[in-house]
Amino acid sequence: MADDRKLTPRAEDFSAWYNELVQRAELADHSPVRGSMVIRPWGYGIWERMQRALDDMFKATGHENAYFPLLIPMSFIEKEKEHVAGFKPELAVVTHAGGKELEEPLVVRPTSETVILEMFARWVQSYRDLPLLINQWANVMRWELRTRLFLRTSEFLWQEGHTAHATSQEAEDHARLMLGVYREFMEQWIAIAPLTGRKTEGERFAGAVVTWALEALMQDNKALQAGTSHFLGQNFSKAANFTFQSEAGSEEFAWSTSWGVSTRLVGGLVMTHGDDDGLVVPPRLAPVQVVVVPIYKNDEERAATEAKAREVHQRLVELGVRSKVDARDHMNPGAKFYEWERKGVPLRIEIGPKDLAQGQLCVARRVFGEDERRKAFLLEGEAIASIPQRLEELQAFLFQQAIARREANSYRGVSDWGELKEILETTGGFVYTGWSGDPAVEERAKEELKATIRVIPDEEFRSPDTPSQCISGQGAAKHEVVWARSY
Amino acid sequence: MADDRKLTPRAEDFSAWYNELVQRAELADHSPVRGSMVIRPWGYGIWERMQRALDDMFKATGHENAYFPLLIPMSFIEKEKEHVAGFKPELAVVTHAGGKELEEPLVVRPTSETVILEMFARWVQSYRDLPLLINQWANVMRWELRTRLFLRTSEFLWQEGHTAHATSQEAEDHARLMLGVYREFMEQWIAIAPLTGRKTEGERFAGAVVTWALEALMQDNKALQAGTSHFLGQNFSKAANFTFQSEAGSEEFAWSTSWGVSTRLVGGLVMTHGDDDGLVVPPRLAPVQVVVVPIYKNDEERAATEAKAREVHQRLVELGVRSKVDARDHMNPGAKFYEWERKGVPLRIEIGPKDLAQGQLCVARRVFGEDERRKAFLLEGEAIASIPQRLEELQAFLFQQAIARREANSYRGVSDWGELKEILETTGGFVYTGWSGDPAVEERAKEELKATIRVIPDEEFRSPDTPSQCISGQGAAKHEVVWARSY
Repeated sequence: MADDRKLTPRAEDFSAWYNELVQRAELADHSPVRGSMVIRPWGYGIWERMQRALDDMFKATGHENAYFPLLIPMSFIEKEKEHVAGFKPELAVVTHAGGKELEEPLVVRPTSETVILEMFARWVQSYRDLPLLINQWANVMRWELRTRLFLRTSEFLWQEGHTAHATSQEAEDHARLMLGVYREFMEQWIAIAPLTGRKTEGERFAGAVVTWALEALMQDNKALQAGTSHFLGQNFSKAANFTFQSEAGSEEFAWSTSWGVSTRLVGGLVMTHGDDDGLVVPPRLAPVQVVVVPIYKNDEERAATEAKAREVHQRLVELGVRSKVDARDHMNPGAKFYEWERKGVPLRIEIGPKDLAQGQLCVARRVFGEDERRKAFLLEGEAIASIPQRLEELQAFLFQQAIARREANSYRGVSDWGELKEILETTGGFVYTGWSGDPAVEERAKEELKATIRVIPDEEFRSPDTPSQCISGQGAAKHEVVWARSY
Repeated sequence: MADDRKLTPRAEDFSAWYNELVQRAELADHSPVRGSMVIRPWGYGIWERMQRALDDMFKATGHENAYFPLLIPMSFIEKEKEHVAGFKPELAVVTHAGGKELEEPLVVRPTSETVILEMFARWVQSYRDLPLLINQWANVMRWELRTRLFLRTSEFLWQEGHTAHATSQEAEDHARLMLGVYREFMEQWIAIAPLTGRKTEGERFAGAVVTWALEALMQDNKALQAGTSHFLGQNFSKAANFTFQSEAGSEEFAWSTSWGVSTRLVGGLVMTHGDDDGLVVPPRLAPVQVVVVPIYKNDEERAATEAKAREVHQRLVELGVRSKVDARDHMNPGAKFYEWERKGVPLRIEIGPKDLAQGQLCVARRVFGEDERRKAFLLEGEAIASIPQRLEELQAFLFQQAIARREANSYRGVSDWGELKEILETTGGFVYTGWSGDPAVEERAKEELKATIRVIPDEEFRSPDTPSQCISGQGAAKHEVVWARSY
């Protein structure tokens, strides 16, 4: 039975709102294992659609799926020095198996570069075997002390792409290509509007040469790192002794990339589109796009409205719409409306005796613009025929709303530390400033402002006027950067 | 680069043949982690198609996917007495995480009944919340000393269905329903011909009331347990204190089922259809159904045959065929043929200059009946149009071959221990006998014959003449049973 208490409003306590929504919309639940979550069917249905869309995009760009071991020998993780320093504190370690203590401890993968490149080294002999473009759908484990459903859990589901190339340029281009694939996916499917750019040295993936990231602004004006793509140079190839014979006949280390997005995206979806009534799922990801609810007061009306509901459902299915009839007899229509709104179903069709008599349907939208009405009464055929377009419009509306919110909460040309501080402490948002490149400035911001440089933005996102001074007041700006508090 | 040495013939050493095939067809590889395998893109592509087909069948029977934690507290596993006895020796145990020793060890799930029913107990209040029909796609870990790729590895991929019901009958019916779903999937997609039936008490799942199984005969006449479906009664509900309010208002323990198939099915596919040239993939599961190979001696011929190959490919794709052009210039056609045969691609189209001149294509089949030719030369349009039907015919041919082999290697009416022994030690196969129900007979068979009762067969598979005597010579037969050596 769903918990149908009202949610804490976002404005009152965004964090409480999020936690309540995730559980009451039945997206996920805490598990008996500290730090691990249970993804419930409604949340998993959204993740499945994300997976399908991404998987199609990966295959269209030449990747194949494979599967590598969950457990990695501790000695592998230790081969790449920065990598082990980054991940060791978060490892879960298997020390016993089959009733015995293991000779070497095995770690539950926090990410799989080390073991995957070890296998690539066996499979690749010459440049003819390159590029090798592999993706893995898997669970990973990073032990976390403070966890939040979807956003930060010890175990999470993700995909990790791993590719190997004959040249540095090709690998770097590939990492950029996948950043673009992620961006397209996030915009077109999740309807979020991430910034893209490069991470600073202090924020990049442990072992990477360059990390590019997608940073999306949530409704509380904190940033969410929604995905990353890494150019790994020859770092992991050297650790795995992964060489190939070049076209010229020499033995060279391969150039590699890795890139990943995770179930964290479901959290990003919630914090971008949800409202005080509950979740809003972009139509392309919604497990149910339209719920059809018969409304009746007696058995005769029930028979008639249910029959019509099933007929409408069937016609929607034929149009390729994911529809569901809610014919539960022990709940009144209001309770059903409330439950499906909380779960974020984009459209609802109501069918009562009066609608039957007039040959009409009532189409209600989960979200709507300021000048729009929530409900429309339309002749049956017209109503059904309009559904696919209404879903597309809603998808576009959500994306436009996300862009508008990002732009309204982006502060450009900030050149004073006090102003940066004030923005972060009051409204929050993305703050664009100059930066000298000195890591000490990042350290100071972490402590004083609880904020980090999210990215050195890609050209498209840079301000028309390049900042000349570092936000610290000391030194010239080497880059324009984007600051924010983040998840 | 693929390893293109000839395989050890099956007749010489079936086990060596299997190991070589799995690696040389690039289905899987050993990993640096003892007991864990790497599933390579070709093997994973087959598994992905199995997943998709099963997932569609699960959804069509009302199930939804969800995800539960990888790590389970040791105390959970210990709640169900038979369960812990069955699984404890095979557990991998996480004792340290986040740099500290854990207060309670966590086991890497060997299966998830204990944690899933714990969550069901939270979600279900009344009979109105039942049935709850959930499936999980996941990795599981059962520590194995002797491992074989796909057939027996410490980590494997599977799906585990878990359902809860208000009545015993409904749960039992559901476990039987899923056994039927598995059977249909195996027959229609993998083209294997499993027996179905009930396991004896000694062979059933640890904690189950009844275990039904699908047992398929491999080419070496050993049985492979291809899938199981369990009626769990109230055993796991009681361990998890999973109760619900019945329609009558009383508090009752729920009735549950679980059922699973795994990447082991890929091994079953290999051992059913492979031959001395390599793998044979049933067309419905083949990542590539048709490979198109241009044949040429100079650049001019190359341009013409490659252009035609791409044109043919495009038309096949439009027909819904998974086609691939092999345009690698550094390999001769013979080497390509050999590689794709080893990988089991069902059909090959060869296009040489002579074919171009005559407007024809050469269609070669990976397997063919005794009276059939391997290659057919057909006019281009006719050849292309015939491909979908040829693939269906090949799918049906493989299934018929599997049924015929099972029937040819089934021995019914065996009533003498010596005869049972002789069959198992010479030809192998499924041997039908009477059995008194005494577990001592099973024990004796295990030691003397290295064989077990695979199933008490379902009615459809029983012999017309019910055996009257137990194969042990002592006592009347309580059941007809099927003996075999097995994987």
